[in-house]
Amino acid sequence: MTDKSAIDKPSIKQLTIFGVGLIGGSFALALKKAGICDRIVGCNRSEDSLKKAVELGVIDSYVLNPVDAIAGSDVIFLGVPLGAMKTILDQIRDDITPDMIITDGGSAKNSVVEAFKEALGEIPAQFVPGHPIAGRERSGVEAAIDDLYQQRKVILTPLEHTDPDAITTVEALWQACGANVEQMGLQEHDKVLAATSHLPHMLAFQLVDTLNRCTFNEDVFRYAAGGFQDFTRIASSDPVMWRDIGMANREAIVYMIEQYQRDLEQLKAHVSSADGDALYLLFQSAKQARDNFLKQRVLTEEE
Amino acid sequence: MTDKSAIDKPSIKQLTIFGVGLIGGSFALALKKAGICDRIVGCNRSEDSLKKAVELGVIDSYVLNPVDAIAGSDVIFLGVPLGAMKTILDQIRDDITPDMIITDGGSAKNSVVEAFKEALGEIPAQFVPGHPIAGRERSGVEAAIDDLYQQRKVILTPLEHTDPDAITTVEALWQACGANVEQMGLQEHDKVLAATSHLPHMLAFQLVDTLNRCTFNEDVFRYAAGGFQDFTRIASSDPVMWRDIGMANREAIVYMIEQYQRDLEQLKAHVSSADGDALYLLFQSAKQARDNFLKQRVLTEEE
Repeated sequence: MTDKSAIDKPSIKQLTIFGVGLIGGSFALALKKAGICDRIVGCNRSEDSLKKAVELGVIDSYVLNPVDAIAGSDVIFLGVPLGAMKTILDQIRDDITPDMIITDGGSAKNSVVEAFKEALGEIPAQFVPGHPIAGRERSGVEAAIDDLYQQRKVILTPLEHTDPDAITTVEALWQACGANVEQMGLQEHDKVLAATSHLPHMLAFQLVDTLNRCTFNEDVFRYAAGGFQDFTRIASSDPVMWRDIGMANREAIVYMIEQYQRDLEQLKAHVSSADGDALYLLFQSAKQARDNFLKQRVLTEEE
Repeated sequence: MTDKSAIDKPSIKQLTIFGVGLIGGSFALALKKAGICDRIVGCNRSEDSLKKAVELGVIDSYVLNPVDAIAGSDVIFLGVPLGAMKTILDQIRDDITPDMIITDGGSAKNSVVEAFKEALGEIPAQFVPGHPIAGRERSGVEAAIDDLYQQRKVILTPLEHTDPDAITTVEALWQACGANVEQMGLQEHDKVLAATSHLPHMLAFQLVDTLNRCTFNEDVFRYAAGGFQDFTRIASSDPVMWRDIGMANREAIVYMIEQYQRDLEQLKAHVSSADGDALYLLFQSAKQARDNFLKQRVLTEEE
């Protein structure tokens, strides 16, 4: 370990996590492993899952009352679904002190900023919007692992007036989890994520639903093979989380669905008219783009 | 080994494979491993890939002239893309003898039967249409492996006048490859496969293409994560094979795309109107259907 990393390493007396599920729980486990937090406190609506989280060693203790949960915290992490952000902020808004750094893990950043505006009347300078690009098929605290963020991207979307020291601390926390942290504009984040993540999820959920509604759906699932299994992996994701993403980033998602609909209509026309050249061109260029994506991914991971 | 399996095990003096790629090559490797074929002869348009196939030990020898390639064969396997079936049949039609069993690995069965009708004027009784439900991201003879068909389904779609002995032999060959063989009607096969395989492939190719056409496509591929990688795995499939499938099974594929378009339009409306209940219901039921599919798959594999 170099001197630099020893200096950069933040020291957190208390971290409070709202929503100790896959994302919040994995954040807790990684920070514990890094030896950065003296105490991690959890706060969920369900006491059962908090008990489970303590049993699993994900958090040190839990508090059911949100106000009590943040008392004495240096850092607050909002790991709840997007639709629950405002409810929590409504409850803690009068008890947030200026020395508490707040960050979150929501997949659509504009809606979280809006929740702050609505609940607090303003976006506090110590709030650093964040989004770890990581996930698993399974959800809940039982799915939390300490290396979920290893070599994953975490995007921070600070605003103009966000406190630089708060950004530095949040960045250091994610780096301690093994993540590569980047910054991006709020709107750009939501647009890019609508394309890379939200659209694919919507399409996968819809595919499984469409097949399930087929009159011959038993055969459909009986003869589905490995390709179908991979293609629909993301359709096993948490429905609450995705309902909230669908609502929170709806403009960007609707825009992407429309792009896709336009292109799919054209693909259908090519199939319908048996236009082999057009189909070949499309499939070949898609294959090339995807193969390039894989190559770049391997290069990035080797860095 | 029981007596029964010793009796059932066919003994093939010569198998000729047209199209020694992933499918044909893996068929050859599995049969070699099972010790069932005395001699496997390959025939492709490209001599380079045939040389490679011999080097890799996939086939014993190759012949460039289709007529010479089938001379002395007990079984002929058509492993070429659907669009190339008729070309080969045109070349060998006068040299097929009644004792030669013919089968194929095409993903859309009606089009292969049509190719026979057009090339031979009739569908010979010794032709057994078949389709192994197996594949890999990579294609070509280099991707061929001897266990590709282990525990995979192979669907045979014999016609009313198909010779029962030919069916038995083809079935035994696939069983020797470790596959579970089933029979199905031709039209049903094409309908079910359009849903479980052809539609997902079309959607995945189209997704990669749509994202690639985004003005911000560099960011799209830069921030795409594991979910995207799985979702689009099948978009790295062989463009020629999929062009031919798109054309060969176009009616069933267009029908499925239209079902999907109808449902996607509704999903878009739910997102657009921020109808959380409808989104939750859709995602929840899709997740359930997919989780059930996985459970059943595990059960089947444990059988």
